[in-house]
Parts: sequence; C-alpha cells; structure tokens
Amino acid sequence: MPDKINKIEEWLRNNGSRFAYIADPVNVFYLTHFKCDPHERFLGLFIFPEDEPFLICPELEVRQAMSSDFGSEVIGYRDDQDPWTFVKKTLDSRKLNDGKIAIEPSTLPYKKALALTHLYEHASFTSIEGLLASLRNIKDEFELAAMKKAGEAADYAVGLGVDAIKKGKTEKAIIAEIEYELAKHGFSEMAFDTMVLTGENSAAPHGYPGTRQIKEGDFILFDLGVVVDGYCSDITRTVCYKYVSEDQQKIYDTCLQANLAAIHAVREGLRIGDLDGTARKVITDAGYGKYFTHRLGHGLGLGEHEEPSMSADNDHTLTAGMVFTIEPGIYVPDVGGVRIEDDIYLSKDGPVTLTHYPKELQIIH
Amino acid sequence: MPDKINKIEEWLRNNGSRFAYIADPVNVFYLTHFKCDPHERFLGLFIFPEDEPFLICPELEVRQAMSSDFGSEVIGYRDDQDPWTFVKKTLDSRKLNDGKIAIEPSTLPYKKALALTHLYEHASFTSIEGLLASLRNIKDEFELAAMKKAGEAADYAVGLGVDAIKKGKTEKAIIAEIEYELAKHGFSEMAFDTMVLTGENSAAPHGYPGTRQIKEGDFILFDLGVVVDGYCSDITRTVCYKYVSEDQQKIYDTCLQANLAAIHAVREGLRIGDLDGTARKVITDAGYGKYFTHRLGHGLGLGEHEEPSMSADNDHTLTAGMVFTIEPGIYVPDVGGVRIEDDIYLSKDGPVTLTHYPKELQIIH
Repeated sequence: MPDKINKIEEWLRNNGSRFAYIADPVNVFYLTHFKCDPHERFLGLFIFPEDEPFLICPELEVRQAMSSDFGSEVIGYRDDQDPWTFVKKTLDSRKLNDGKIAIEPSTLPYKKALALTHLYEHASFTSIEGLLASLRNIKDEFELAAMKKAGEAADYAVGLGVDAIKKGKTEKAIIAEIEYELAKHGFSEMAFDTMVLTGENSAAPHGYPGTRQIKEGDFILFDLGVVVDGYCSDITRTVCYKYVSEDQQKIYDTCLQANLAAIHAVREGLRIGDLDGTARKVITDAGYGKYFTHRLGHGLGLGEHEEPSMSADNDHTLTAGMVFTIEPGIYVPDVGGVRIEDDIYLSKDGPVTLTHYPKELQIIH
Repeated sequence: MPDKINKIEEWLRNNGSRFAYIADPVNVFYLTHFKCDPHERFLGLFIFPEDEPFLICPELEVRQAMSSDFGSEVIGYRDDQDPWTFVKKTLDSRKLNDGKIAIEPSTLPYKKALALTHLYEHASFTSIEGLLASLRNIKDEFELAAMKKAGEAADYAVGLGVDAIKKGKTEKAIIAEIEYELAKHGFSEMAFDTMVLTGENSAAPHGYPGTRQIKEGDFILFDLGVVVDGYCSDITRTVCYKYVSEDQQKIYDTCLQANLAAIHAVREGLRIGDLDGTARKVITDAGYGKYFTHRLGHGLGLGEHEEPSMSADNDHTLTAGMVFTIEPGIYVPDVGGVRIEDDIYLSKDGPVTLTHYPKELQIIH
C-alpha cells in the first residue's frame, strides 16, 4: 500500500507540485486501505514530494484510520471544529509556499478548490487524476483476488435471481430475495442498485425495477454487482420465462455472439475502440445496429465505472492488468431487451473471465 | 413543481445572474421530479432569469425526463457525443454573454466549473446553494406526506429488527432480515447503510456492522432510514437483550430524557444551538457530557443530512416547515452506547413527531 503513495510522491517530484490533496474517499481507500464515507464532512489525504503524508478525518474515524495501512500522521477534528484550520496549520508547519497543488478535478467540489486558493492565494492546480486512474487501471494480485471473489458472488447472485423467478412475482420482490440471500452469506454491499427488468421493461437499458409482474414470454434481465474487499463485480444475464419467440431467440443469439466475439478478440495492444467495433459489427450485421445504444463496457475496480471507457472513440490500447466489462445489448421496443455482460481481466497470457454464470439461453419453467 | 423553478428565476433576476447551472441530481429532482442518477455522465438543468429553462441528460434518460413535471426542453446526448457542445450551442442560441453564473459550489466538481469558464472566459460564479437549501428546508404538503410515510416505514423497519433479535445472531444477519422484509413490502431504497450495532460496538456512533453475535446483556442499536417518493426518514432506537445493568439503565434513561426534553423545547423562533444545549444539559448534568460526542441532529428531506445542522454553534432559528432529527447519544467505551433519534416536523402549531416506534427501554427475551 505505501508503495502506491510512493508512486504519488515520485509523480509530485517529477511534476514540480508542492503537494497532492486527495479528497475522493475511494482514492483515499485505494492509497491507504482506510475506508471512510465522510458524507458532507471533510476528508483529506495530503501527500508531499519529499515529506511524510498526513490524513485529516472526523475524530470519530481516527481509530479506524490509525489501524489502516496508512501508518503516517492522522489528525482528527470534531464537528464543532473547522478542518481547514488543521489543514492550514499542518501545511504551514511544513513551510509550504504557493505553488502547484495536485487535485482530483472530476470529483473535488469547487468549494474545496476555492478553500485551497484562500489558503494559498497564488496557488495553481494540476490534475492528479490521470495518474490515479492509470494506477487503479492495473490491478495487483490483492486486487485481482478480491475481484475474482466479487465475480463469484455475482454468479451466485444471478443464480439466486433465476431461482426466484415465478409467475406473477414482481421485479422488486426478486431483487429483495437476491439481496437477502447474499447478505445472509456475508455479501452485504452491492456495487450499484440491483436491476431486474422484465418484459417490455427489459428494453430500457437504464430502467428502474418496479412492481411489474412476470408473464409468460418475458425476457428477464438481471444486472447486478457485489462488492468484496472494496472491489466491484458487474454482471448481466438475460433469461426467458416459459417460452421464447423467434424474434427473441434471434436477438439473444446475436447478443451472445457479440459478447463472445469481443471476449475472443481481447488481447494486449488492441485499440479499445476496435473492441467495441468487433461486438457492434456482429449486431449491425444482424440488423440490430440501431438497438445497441451504448458503449461496449467500462473499466471496473473500486468503482463500478472506471477507466477505460470501452467506447468506439477510445484510441487507447488494452494493457495487461486491466479489468473491464464486455456488455453488448440489444433493446427492441415492445419486444424486449437482452444484455450479456462479463468482467474480463487481461492477464499477460490473455483474457481471464471473472464471471462464469452460463450464457446459453435459459428458458425458465 | 414549476413553482420552485419560478423561485429560482426570480432569485436570478434579483441577483443579476445570467443563468443557473444545476448539476446535483438531488436538486434536479427537487425542481423537476425527474429522477436521474447519471454516475459520471453529464446532467444539467439550466435556468434563466427571463427565458425557458432546459435540461441536458443522457439520451437513455430523455423519455423519463419528458414524462417528469419539468415540461420544458429536454436535450439528450449519446455516449459518443460531448454534452458540453450541446450546452454551448443551446446557451449561444439564447445569446448569453459573460456574466455571473449561479452554481452549487459544494457539489459541483471543479472540472465542470472549469468547463464553464472555458465557454465564458470572463464568467464569474455565484452560489445558489443558500437559496436551494432554504427552499428545501421548508417542506410543502407533498413533501410532508412523503416524509410521514417514510417515518412510518422506519418504525416498521425497527420493529422488524427487534423481532429478528436472537442469541448468536450477527449484526449483518439482522440487517439482511430487515431489508428483505422491507423490500417485500415495496420499500426497496434505504436512506443510508442500515446500522445494527451490538454490545461494545454500539459505543461507536459511526461503527460498521459486522459478524459480532448477540450476547446476553448487550445493547442493540438500530439506526436506519427508508426512502419514500425520494424523501428520507432516519430513526435510531436502542434495546437490551435479556437483562440490563444499572449502568445501562442510567445511560438509557438519561438519553431518553435528553431526547424528550429537546422535542418538548422545539418551537418556532428558537435558536437551533439552544436546542442542542437543552439535550446536552440533561446529559452533562447526569455526568455523561463527554460521551455525547456529536451534534444533536440534522435537517432531513431528499438528503439524509440537510440543513439545518442542529449543532451548538448554529445561530439560526427554527422555522415552521422544517424537518430535522433529534438524536442525543451517550457512548461509554466498554459499557455500550445508546442513541434515541426521532424525525420532527415543525408545524405552525408546534412539533409533530414523524417516527413513532416506542421509546421506553425494551428488554428483549
């Protein structure tokens, strides 16, 4: 873990920055293994090119921070104290003058950036997000182990959902059963709101599960993820209830071919946009091009949506150590939607699929 | 709903701002009833002093936005399109020059503020958060109705938790049972991660539920909230398992007296810090002052933590229409912790408690 902070320090030296202010709780966890969800309260990890880092967090969380992998100074503040006075005092003790401050522009609220400029009038900002994303992009053994477990939990969860299918049951009821059984087995954190979409609802890629009841001939789409040791999985499977129409069968087969073709094409050095193209070609050739309305997938890790974005316009290439989703989808209004999503780890020896729930079309009776 | 947008427009006129850029999905929902969680995608509600507002959201969400209460122009963009070009084009068509732009500094990422300054080089920012907070602070009838239902759901949830208590059961298992039963009854969104803390864990006000098993003599603390129609409840109750020690009884009685004294003191025009003082005095007089380590409570609404902050240093006064929590707590290391939290609506006729689960100490057998 300190290893990752070392890389930040090295970058700060090369970049000529005075310090980095890491405020995103996910990045703080990534660098320290200190898990803290401070809500509107202040959390800040300050890293320096040549000096020891320090962490400021609510007093209630200090003990947890001290027992994390961080190992450097932890400063707590109470609800009736202004954390910025602690920031100022500690930074001043390090004799910091104006200069470049490395921040996370995509998540750091404008107000906090402004507070920094109040401390250091002539401060300028530089983004450290590229470095953090590229570090987080390449998973180490610990991370891979967690993501394998998260993938297995996702497989298990889809199985629970399929077992819960019954005529008349609502989408929400199935979600409740999945999450109850998961929690009983110690998986109490989902990566995002579990989606179970049935019938015409399955044609809305970002639909909201509701009280629609399962009917014969429905597609039933499960999209869910489980968090293990902080790391997310993300799986989608689609099944049919009682029978399948010719249209549905063709949509399903096309989507599965696209999923398989893309996984098959994964290799180091491949342009990411071309991977999207591989899946999209299968779907377009079958005449469903206009119904594949989103990118092929996204990176996965501590966040359920990370870099790289697996989209047509991404000119970056696949690198060993990446974990990402491959999730082609076909959404035909009034007929229904199919999406088949796997999590892929790109090892030095080729793609390793982390999600294993069967993909041949199941017709549930 | 448009009524709330009218108030923003009026404020923009008085404030001399060119437009407001509302990016926080919760505020977008507040103003339009369009529920959208865009993750890292772009969402923006643009409101003008004299012109029609418009909304930019992912194409996938356009239908939902159109069927909301918004009623003005909705612009969708695909994943392969840059939403900022739509922002620029639409703003240009309104012939906007440089000037003051109203933003939400606490939540707007620095990067998005920067993007605005790239569109309008001489733009300056002003905060619209004070207005939004003060609007959201005062609940209308629709909001109160939702919060009453959310309070009832919270009462029901605590009952489920108390019913699930059994020797040897873990904190996580009880949470799973609560949320499963809630979901079966249509309550599938919690306001925050449900907390069940037992024994010495109950002494950590921000503890994480785990696999500790219930033992005789434990305090069992439930802190949970349910979301209904977007609005949150937030309740805490503490019970004992099998028997209660003299120390525990005294801690409980003191905490309950503090809760009741504060609720009794609620009235329009009262300085909020003094309400914290009322509860704190009860606890301090009983000798537990140093164990009440947090503020008395917080505002409640679409967010689980809103203004006003019910803290000692808050000089603002209570106003009819506010909903807030009253949640004194006493956390004695090695003995255990008690917190008793209610949601209070301040009507013109005095405080109305929205949470009704009984507060006399229950000893569960």
